[in-house]
Amino acid sequence: MPELRKDPVSGRWVIISTERRKRPMDFIRTREAPKGGTCPFCPGNESLTPPEIIAYRPHGSKPNTPGWTLRVVPNRFPALRVEGDLGRAGVGMYDKMNGVGAHEVVIETPGHQDSLSTLPEERLKDVLWSFKERSNDLKKDKRFRSILIFKNHGEAAGASLEHPHSQLIALPIIPRELSLELDGAQFFHKYRERCIFCDGLQQDIEQEDRIIINSGDFVAIAPFASRFPFEAWIMPREHAAFYEDITPSLADSLAGLFHELLRKMDKVLDKPSYNFYLHTAPFNGSYPRTNEYFHWHFEIMPILTQVAGFEKGTGFYINPTPPEEAAQFLRDA
Amino acid sequence: MPELRKDPVSGRWVIISTERRKRPMDFIRTREAPKGGTCPFCPGNESLTPPEIIAYRPHGSKPNTPGWTLRVVPNRFPALRVEGDLGRAGVGMYDKMNGVGAHEVVIETPGHQDSLSTLPEERLKDVLWSFKERSNDLKKDKRFRSILIFKNHGEAAGASLEHPHSQLIALPIIPRELSLELDGAQFFHKYRERCIFCDGLQQDIEQEDRIIINSGDFVAIAPFASRFPFEAWIMPREHAAFYEDITPSLADSLAGLFHELLRKMDKVLDKPSYNFYLHTAPFNGSYPRTNEYFHWHFEIMPILTQVAGFEKGTGFYINPTPPEEAAQFLRDA
Repeated sequence: MPELRKDPVSGRWVIISTERRKRPMDFIRTREAPKGGTCPFCPGNESLTPPEIIAYRPHGSKPNTPGWTLRVVPNRFPALRVEGDLGRAGVGMYDKMNGVGAHEVVIETPGHQDSLSTLPEERLKDVLWSFKERSNDLKKDKRFRSILIFKNHGEAAGASLEHPHSQLIALPIIPRELSLELDGAQFFHKYRERCIFCDGLQQDIEQEDRIIINSGDFVAIAPFASRFPFEAWIMPREHAAFYEDITPSLADSLAGLFHELLRKMDKVLDKPSYNFYLHTAPFNGSYPRTNEYFHWHFEIMPILTQVAGFEKGTGFYINPTPPEEAAQFLRDA
Repeated sequence: MPELRKDPVSGRWVIISTERRKRPMDFIRTREAPKGGTCPFCPGNESLTPPEIIAYRPHGSKPNTPGWTLRVVPNRFPALRVEGDLGRAGVGMYDKMNGVGAHEVVIETPGHQDSLSTLPEERLKDVLWSFKERSNDLKKDKRFRSILIFKNHGEAAGASLEHPHSQLIALPIIPRELSLELDGAQFFHKYRERCIFCDGLQQDIEQEDRIIINSGDFVAIAPFASRFPFEAWIMPREHAAFYEDITPSLADSLAGLFHELLRKMDKVLDKPSYNFYLHTAPFNGSYPRTNEYFHWHFEIMPILTQVAGFEKGTGFYINPTPPEEAAQFLRDA
């Protein structure tokens, strides 16, 4: 069972992943080993993954056989384990709990060489829809308090497998980056009784210079305090705290804008590696009335610079590209 | 002038570095460009850096000429600028200020191929001493509130120049990672009237299994909630908030332990790339009575895993090596 441990000073949790326990030689070998071998995500290799949780496949076709256009499977080397109780406990002055959670992989397409920017828009919609479906299912588990959906695209972004996929981790706690946003939004809401994300978006739309795409339903912006060059956020224009409540027509609209943004990034930055993740409101009563002040959004970060000692030591980023310039390059692409 | 901008939701500051402004082609070129050329940190090339601020060199030898064993120079492409006032201002609902600060480089040795682990121990002491000297000088500037000293060793750690060097950035604000530690330590101190770092260290010494080296004056530990495999912290055994108050004899002792730790890491992990940074108390009255609850320490992180979407989206790390095992490998080396 993996273990969750909390740093007593900063309150930061970590997962000590005993399932993929690594010794010094494992790291040294990884540094030298070439990648390759059979792709467990390609059609025909369904037996190399745990059995699928959901799949989008022609009516009547059998689970765990080819024919699908999208599969969601448990991660074969999960960071957290679905079984067991939380087991919160102290170790002297330290705190730990069992590494309970869900870790799933969305295999976005059967095509090993595809990418989200080259897939047809309807297929990108399927990916976005699978995020909603899985979130709604995992929310029923009362042990979980939040879900992080994320993607590592390209080696520089930390992708360990080339085949297009994204990941979902359901957590028994609210992770720090999300709680910092929740706390900030709640604080603003107490004072102004408005959503801080809505206010920021309104100002960005009026100022225009940080807008990349505005499709009416969704807006892609280069945020005022972008950490990374060409960082982009996608936000719904109408206030909405829970991504998993998205309607089919809004998911269509989101797929259109997401697709356009990724294609613009590919064009301007020559197909960069990137990470994205989705920040959506936690559930099961973790924060009161989150629906009033939290606003879901995707954060997309092309990998163009390296995070080094200064960023690690301060949590403070040096961004060599003003977001207003990044937005213009992307807008014009 | 670089600009500091604050994310209104999370409170995170970023530096928008106009001095090194980068456009899309700059990133694409960097990805493809081979490194090389004249090293600005090698003896004989002193004119390629701004004039030295301090240097350790034989008595009577001229500034900015060869003969030195250590030089501190302003960064030629500083993330922040020394001149100017803070200029705090709002932009609608957003906050910004001038990118005022100091950015210096410690050229640790004339030897291009040296490393901190292969330098004689006395020379490592000089490096540690230069950190103290520069901190004491920069503290006099009332615009600054904190200093981050850090090192990127090896390409995987984000080092852009191969020649051994560390960096110092004096900031007009308290960066987030430091303020999270300060807030946590202050909170604990209110309740217990003790230093949380001292308590943790006491427990680690009693439990023994996370101790890498205990020299009496200093202890190197694998922290309970290590984010990274083989992460190590160096802490003074006696409570001390301000690194820059270190005495010559304690600096000797610190150099000995630091040297031993780096040599053990080189041995166990086959000369890994690494980052380290120093967390020391802020100054000029930013936090009241920090000397009672903050405890300076170095955090050293070999680069063995990649930080990807999950870590960025959550601030939550997955560590495949339990710190108790890491400590044992290093202890035994």
